[in-house]
Amino acid sequence: MHQLLHCPSVPQLPWQERPKDAGDLPLWRYESNPIIGRNPQKGITRIFNSAALPWKDGFIASVRGERTNGVPLTYLAHSSDGIHWQIEENPIVLKDKNGNIINPRYAYDPRLVKVEDSFYLIWCQDFYGASIGMAKTEDFVHFEKLENPFIPFNRNAVLFPRKINGMYTMLSRPSDSGHTPFGDIFLSQSPDMEFWGRHRHVMSPSGNWWENVKIGSGAAPLETDLGWLLFYHGVTGTCNGFIYSIGGAILDRDEPSRVLHRCKTFLLTPEKEYEERGFVPNVCFPCAAIADGDTGRIALYYGAADSYVALAFTTVDEVINYILANDETSETDREIGIR
Amino acid sequence: MHQLLHCPSVPQLPWQERPKDAGDLPLWRYESNPIIGRNPQKGITRIFNSAALPWKDGFIASVRGERTNGVPLTYLAHSSDGIHWQIEENPIVLKDKNGNIINPRYAYDPRLVKVEDSFYLIWCQDFYGASIGMAKTEDFVHFEKLENPFIPFNRNAVLFPRKINGMYTMLSRPSDSGHTPFGDIFLSQSPDMEFWGRHRHVMSPSGNWWENVKIGSGAAPLETDLGWLLFYHGVTGTCNGFIYSIGGAILDRDEPSRVLHRCKTFLLTPEKEYEERGFVPNVCFPCAAIADGDTGRIALYYGAADSYVALAFTTVDEVINYILANDETSETDREIGIR
Amino acid sequence: MHQLLHCPSVPQLPWQERPKDAGDLPLWRYESNPIIGRNPQKGITRIFNSAALPWKDGFIASVRGERTNGVPLTYLAHSSDGIHWQIEENPIVLKDKNGNIINPRYAYDPRLVKVEDSFYLIWCQDFYGASIGMAKTEDFVHFEKLENPFIPFNRNAVLFPRKINGMYTMLSRPSDSGHTPFGDIFLSQSPDMEFWGRHRHVMSPSGNWWENVKIGSGAAPLETDLGWLLFYHGVTGTCNGFIYSIGGAILDRDEPSRVLHRCKTFLLTPEKEYEERGFVPNVCFPCAAIADGDTGRIALYYGAADSYVALAFTTVDEVINYILANDETSETDREIGIR
Amino acid sequence: MHQLLHCPSVPQLPWQERPKDAGDLPLWRYESNPIIGRNPQKGITRIFNSAALPWKDGFIASVRGERTNGVPLTYLAHSSDGIHWQIEENPIVLKDKNGNIINPRYAYDPRLVKVEDSFYLIWCQDFYGASIGMAKTEDFVHFEKLENPFIPFNRNAVLFPRKINGMYTMLSRPSDSGHTPFGDIFLSQSPDMEFWGRHRHVMSPSGNWWENVKIGSGAAPLETDLGWLLFYHGVTGTCNGFIYSIGGAILDRDEPSRVLHRCKTFLLTPEKEYEERGFVPNVCFPCAAIADGDTGRIALYYGAADSYVALAFTTVDEVINYILANDETSETDREIGIR
Amino acid sequence: MHQLLHCPSVPQLPWQERPKDAGDLPLWRYESNPIIGRNPQKGITRIFNSAALPWKDGFIASVRGERTNGVPLTYLAHSSDGIHWQIEENPIVLKDKNGNIINPRYAYDPRLVKVEDSFYLIWCQDFYGASIGMAKTEDFVHFEKLENPFIPFNRNAVLFPRKINGMYTMLSRPSDSGHTPFGDIFLSQSPDMEFWGRHRHVMSPSGNWWENVKIGSGAAPLETDLGWLLFYHGVTGTCNGFIYSIGGAILDRDEPSRVLHRCKTFLLTPEKEYEERGFVPNVCFPCAAIADGDTGRIALYYGAADSYVALAFTTVDEVINYILANDETSETDREIGIR
Amino acid sequence: MHQLLHCPSVPQLPWQERPKDAGDLPLWRYESNPIIGRNPQKGITRIFNSAALPWKDGFIASVRGERTNGVPLTYLAHSSDGIHWQIEENPIVLKDKNGNIINPRYAYDPRLVKVEDSFYLIWCQDFYGASIGMAKTEDFVHFEKLENPFIPFNRNAVLFPRKINGMYTMLSRPSDSGHTPFGDIFLSQSPDMEFWGRHRHVMSPSGNWWENVKIGSGAAPLETDLGWLLFYHGVTGTCNGFIYSIGGAILDRDEPSRVLHRCKTFLLTPEKEYEERGFVPNVCFPCAAIADGDTGRIALYYGAADSYVALAFTTVDEVINYILANDETSETDREIGIR
Repeated sequence: MHQLLHCPSVPQLPWQERPKDAGDLPLWRYESNPIIGRNPQKGITRIFNSAALPWKDGFIASVRGERTNGVPLTYLAHSSDGIHWQIEENPIVLKDKNGNIINPRYAYDPRLVKVEDSFYLIWCQDFYGASIGMAKTEDFVHFEKLENPFIPFNRNAVLFPRKINGMYTMLSRPSDSGHTPFGDIFLSQSPDMEFWGRHRHVMSPSGNWWENVKIGSGAAPLETDLGWLLFYHGVTGTCNGFIYSIGGAILDRDEPSRVLHRCKTFLLTPEKEYEERGFVPNVCFPCAAIADGDTGRIALYYGAADSYVALAFTTVDEVINYILANDETSETDREIGIR
Repeated sequence: MHQLLHCPSVPQLPWQERPKDAGDLPLWRYESNPIIGRNPQKGITRIFNSAALPWKDGFIASVRGERTNGVPLTYLAHSSDGIHWQIEENPIVLKDKNGNIINPRYAYDPRLVKVEDSFYLIWCQDFYGASIGMAKTEDFVHFEKLENPFIPFNRNAVLFPRKINGMYTMLSRPSDSGHTPFGDIFLSQSPDMEFWGRHRHVMSPSGNWWENVKIGSGAAPLETDLGWLLFYHGVTGTCNGFIYSIGGAILDRDEPSRVLHRCKTFLLTPEKEYEERGFVPNVCFPCAAIADGDTGRIALYYGAADSYVALAFTTVDEVINYILANDETSETDREIGIR
Repeated sequence: MHQLLHCPSVPQLPWQERPKDAGDLPLWRYESNPIIGRNPQKGITRIFNSAALPWKDGFIASVRGERTNGVPLTYLAHSSDGIHWQIEENPIVLKDKNGNIINPRYAYDPRLVKVEDSFYLIWCQDFYGASIGMAKTEDFVHFEKLENPFIPFNRNAVLFPRKINGMYTMLSRPSDSGHTPFGDIFLSQSPDMEFWGRHRHVMSPSGNWWENVKIGSGAAPLETDLGWLLFYHGVTGTCNGFIYSIGGAILDRDEPSRVLHRCKTFLLTPEKEYEERGFVPNVCFPCAAIADGDTGRIALYYGAADSYVALAFTTVDEVINYILANDETSETDREIGIR
Repeated sequence: MHQLLHCPSVPQLPWQERPKDAGDLPLWRYESNPIIGRNPQKGITRIFNSAALPWKDGFIASVRGERTNGVPLTYLAHSSDGIHWQIEENPIVLKDKNGNIINPRYAYDPRLVKVEDSFYLIWCQDFYGASIGMAKTEDFVHFEKLENPFIPFNRNAVLFPRKINGMYTMLSRPSDSGHTPFGDIFLSQSPDMEFWGRHRHVMSPSGNWWENVKIGSGAAPLETDLGWLLFYHGVTGTCNGFIYSIGGAILDRDEPSRVLHRCKTFLLTPEKEYEERGFVPNVCFPCAAIADGDTGRIALYYGAADSYVALAFTTVDEVINYILANDETSETDREIGIR
Repeated sequence: MHQLLHCPSVPQLPWQERPKDAGDLPLWRYESNPIIGRNPQKGITRIFNSAALPWKDGFIASVRGERTNGVPLTYLAHSSDGIHWQIEENPIVLKDKNGNIINPRYAYDPRLVKVEDSFYLIWCQDFYGASIGMAKTEDFVHFEKLENPFIPFNRNAVLFPRKINGMYTMLSRPSDSGHTPFGDIFLSQSPDMEFWGRHRHVMSPSGNWWENVKIGSGAAPLETDLGWLLFYHGVTGTCNGFIYSIGGAILDRDEPSRVLHRCKTFLLTPEKEYEERGFVPNVCFPCAAIADGDTGRIALYYGAADSYVALAFTTVDEVINYILANDETSETDREIGIR
Repeated sequence: MHQLLHCPSVPQLPWQERPKDAGDLPLWRYESNPIIGRNPQKGITRIFNSAALPWKDGFIASVRGERTNGVPLTYLAHSSDGIHWQIEENPIVLKDKNGNIINPRYAYDPRLVKVEDSFYLIWCQDFYGASIGMAKTEDFVHFEKLENPFIPFNRNAVLFPRKINGMYTMLSRPSDSGHTPFGDIFLSQSPDMEFWGRHRHVMSPSGNWWENVKIGSGAAPLETDLGWLLFYHGVTGTCNGFIYSIGGAILDRDEPSRVLHRCKTFLLTPEKEYEERGFVPNVCFPCAAIADGDTGRIALYYGAADSYVALAFTTVDEVINYILANDETSETDREIGIR
């Protein structure tokens, strides 16, 4: 029976039991998906690729709000049950150390991670090309923009929820400034959130076709007895475009650039109308996994078709057992004569 | 209260009042869209990207009929209410000055404009590459093919409905002969519909992402007290293809290459199944705007997903006020700390 | 009245009469399409592009099973009515002459053809690039992998159901190893299924836009009094990807690289949700045509959107008459002033 | 014996007799090529792709001067013998009708043509993409910039040296804004040098491989009894870049979009070090042909490797006879069993 | 001391001793290279990529003649010393079995191999794409065109000089129809020169950068006691184009798809002006290796810069020893700390 | 009179006076260039893109040695006069902190910089893509490999020769992993050579065409009274490939991401045969500038055509005066009517 570590109680976590016909994959969809539909707020045409955290008695989220001028900005959203959300009217305001407003022209795919009593917002922005932006808040009112951790080009960065060996630790994916037909996950560390180094390679696309073009994190990793549970996205290419599925891996607790286990199959792949049809068809893009320390339940928030926010469920025990059973190194396939 | 100028009464104009839940954009969809479905006529698999005009007591339209051999040709269609259409069985026949038939091998995205008691058909054809073709008719029976106004490569040309400073005036979009990942709107003038010059640049793609790849007109401009109201298409690119939305701008009445106002947001973007799914997913492509001089009502015909004809409504006052409120030069965004 | 030649009785053939509103194309869809939906078997996410044959009292099929690791393998499936299918749990096992298992790492788009009392499985695999793989079976238990007929790059090979002039005869489509924006159908012959030669060109993409990018067979040809009836796929390109439609041609019985008739229009094109939405939107991909010698009925199995198996019907007389009426060489278009 | 028409005496024309070992092509190189070397003037690194005209007792030229900042501008150059040139220190200054300086940011590949006592400068510039610019002068001191004849994208325009049927007549080559892997020559006419129309297609790349990628004029046509003699460039592609050779054609005198004769072979192709090595290796780019009405001698100025100006010679009789002997329509090749 | 097998005496073989300053590579250049210069024959601008054989007291060659219309055809050439060549005036005439002339529109990179008293010409031609063409002659007067061995796309085919295990054996390189940024060598066999099969993969590009883009044979293999000695070309890519070098390998005598030894380094790479400058800069392209059975001397004919024919020398002992010393599997690099 | 700061005496500096015909650019070439030719050492085919430093009484260099297997490695070279060099037989051996050998598979374009009594080697290597590698030595015998400063993709990194505001400071150029048709120079800082941050943008390609594709440093900056003198490379693109020229800029001494002056023109561009012809034609690639504190003389080592090492000279006063005279912000061009 696998356990979450350092994981608080989240009694308000949204939840549905696994349906009978859920198939053999370890994630199942919320039956009333999508939870955020089109035109959810004045001036915003679509919300997707958004991250949520428990906050006070309910939840808070940093959401990618695609404005009616086509430009993505980051907004805060509030919810008591994790399913119904109120989007703030104006985007988050970032200030530098001197209190000057320095909002980027655009900011997309925000992740939100709590590390040692502070909250960190991490997104993709323009810094002479696609790059990682970061800000820090204690109260979700004042956000201090930090130094950019990297020179371009990079996307899909996410922090680990605690320091590892005394170091802030981040996953990211170097890229080009376009649609990027390649991409590996890297790990970097910092003593102070200003200077970054000790860069390590974590994972490349694999020979499993659902993730043979590029991969990227993902939700902030969840700490378990076995290691860091990472939900990430894997991308394959067809003659009619990319397909984004959700994958899973377990990283070493103390040296998280070491991949202990990696699931050969996707955990979820586009099949529903809200995943297959929209601004970018065929996208399931995980951005946040909230776990309840008491029950081991996990609610996974994912963007659907660059148009919606959707929700899927699993438990820490179920998803880890599935990953172990379908580990890259397992021998099942050979028994039936493949490879 | 903004006014249409030189605009006749069109009491038969199709119309639906704005629904309560229409959101904050100034266009709203006809509730029984699409108005022309699949396989509408023997040998025609799809009709879309088509232009309509008031004609006698009803309406007449030039439609893009995609034949079952995949080749697009231009057909006439007739309607009494602007919603239910009868497609002619054979495509329009073009003749030169001597009465010889000289139909192009293909012709697509036809616009239809009345200028000074004559009707002009303008389309895209092959003239050693994608180019503009033009024809003139008085009676919709005899069509005289005119000189091609330009050398290749060009698409999406439309005439202004009257001479400006004594000159026929046309908007068009230079392109390449493929899928064209760029494109600006230009204006050209002619004293006689044979020789064209005084080319001016009108608009480029903007920093508003919904139109950052290419733009093109669109419906023939409507004259208002404020200037020429132009509905055009703006295109953005994703890893899974282009997205075509509808934009709006106001051009100077006497010097229409001057853009007086340009809306930062789209006026309509693909959200409905008939816009997101079809031969080319995610396309809203405006081709004709009919206005009623008495009421200021506007019916906008647009192609959907290269598969259907759809209809949207607005009023001249509502759409102009929206454009002014969201003008490129307005200061709203800065107040909330963006840029 | 056109006749099938050398065609056995297949009383169990699935069938529905042509519906009233089927339009003017000669194929009509099974009303309960798709016949194989998502996640049809443990570990398989999608089945599509699959071929069926009459077998004993029912049917047997070689299906493309896209596993949850994204890799396609070939499975057998069984059915009594040709509509409801049981998929085997494990993929087909191939052996060489010495009985060693030599399954390829992946195998997709399998065709299945009976030639002179043996059954041949033909698929696409990796042989230092996309290439044709072949195997032979008498009993669907033991499959002997044959020599690869060609060096790379090739896809979409299918055998004729009998020797022609004493030679095994195959259609295939040379390609590159990517998404291949070109492609013609070629014919090759072999005295012994090991050495291949007498290569002939059969058909190129045509000026009919629905098939102007590439073409490929398709279902194994059906022999008729007029010639070999070939259902093939034709592909066109849009700014948002490829569109796969079904075309038809008649090849000379004795010299089948000669195209006697070729239909200018598609016989079926993506219009239904299960064809327009899925892993690869807008795909109708014919893989097997089963005919009943008694009635002339034809059941055509085709892949839909790389996600489903679907079924369409026609009769030999109806489809041949349609092809003749829309033959490339007919004069219909010119009468109405086109070209 | 072929004759030049309307051609003045140019006794100062540079000249060398055909050397014995000149091979079978009708052009031969000046033995002291290149005539303008590297760094010919302060601030100018290379001069090439330049046009010359007789002027007073000597010659005047508009030259492409590639400045040490990499930007090309147009300069005047003077010569008494057509071989040794003095380059002016500053680029040509263009003014609009009101005398305001309106020099383009860059201007390249200038041609210079005398039409009815005025001199016209025609070049390529930026007008929201590569476009044709024009200016007029009587005295080579005052240059009036004319309206741009076309919207983008276009390059390689050149005027005919007299009006044809009362119309100014121009050749040009529509293009894209990059390196343009395609290109045909078109003809356009104007009554007034402001409005352009009656666009006609002249020539496409041919099946002769030396010109199978794109073609473009070239030197202003020379009028002969047989028609307009056009020296143009033809381009082929290799895995290591483009190759520019010099071709020849004869256009109809009254209807110059009709090609009367076109030479299957190049007239000159890169073989010398100054043609094969430089800023763009393997370029022979003809820009001006000066003929002497008395002797029929022709001096052809061509750019070499985008680094030098070079000179070649022929006579009107010799080059026309060669073109006729190697006309596209001649039967020589068939006699030896080719095609 | 390594020996040639089945190798006749060729006392007339051209030869120069290894110069002192030849460096450490086993091939050295003929000091008067190139042996065939520009414009070697009326109507032919360049000769390169050509193959030679001993014939009577001298030599005969099939040469690629690039005509002044840019189209390559195959000519015969004669020489008494292997250095000075007379090119025939007209290209080779091919006939089918019935004596009809069926010359291809173009034919390039011809190889010439003697197998069991017949001579085979093998080249690249258009068969709906780049493909292998073959012909047979006994007397170099009558050439019978054989069946095309493969469907497209393929280049660089060459026969082994004797049957192996009773089978005609050929090397070739599958490709695309363009400049082909990939390419492996394959082996195929035929009992009768009409039907081909038993296709085997031989070699891929290696991690040695000089051959990391594509490889292709090459000269017909020479039989030695150690195995078949193959001179092939290896290609690398730079930002300014491809570089073609000459490589060497030893193939198993009885099962020649097995590579016994393969040299990590090139044997010759472009360094001389006639190799670095020309129609395609930076090309050394081996096409024929003639060996003298008495002395073990080898004369290697190679194309230079797609503009010239050049000659290099070695001995069978010297080149094999070098290959063995630099074998892929040798350990030298590791000793000095690399990898 | 501009001065070098913190610059030691280098009496052994190679030197030639400026020739009379050197033109108006501030750099002049060594008359016996190239100083390192082809095949300079056993197993090495070309040496280029190499950096030198004064060392003891002579010089030491880190050179890019392109081995005969095509793979680049870094070697040391020694010279007493800076012109004649002895290349070491084996590549540099790198060790980690524990003394284990960890040489990269390849390493190219090494720079060598002395910072505070240690020597740093900086090169490009594979770290899941093109990345910066670094090593430190005190004695040129033991090299300790340091942490990689960045995640991919990056090239052309160089250190400043002293800490700035207590921080190690580096210039680099983010890139893709291919031929990279874009590229800006960035600055990063580190307190400890392990963690890097405070990334700043320095320069983009400019509108001066010789550097409009990408730029990259270059030689380690030289400190002067005016600021840091940076020799960098600027690249432009032609239809036949890239052109690499040498540019110059002055960066602020205390805040070196501020560009104080930037020269509009190149300082040197490919013109000589050893620059225009070779493995990559048209490359001048500066890698090291050695200055003599006594005289202000500068010797600039640059790679030529990816085939040779060449040398150019200037003085600090001459080059700075030229940069100031041709500063981006100067008004010269406007005076002559440009822009």
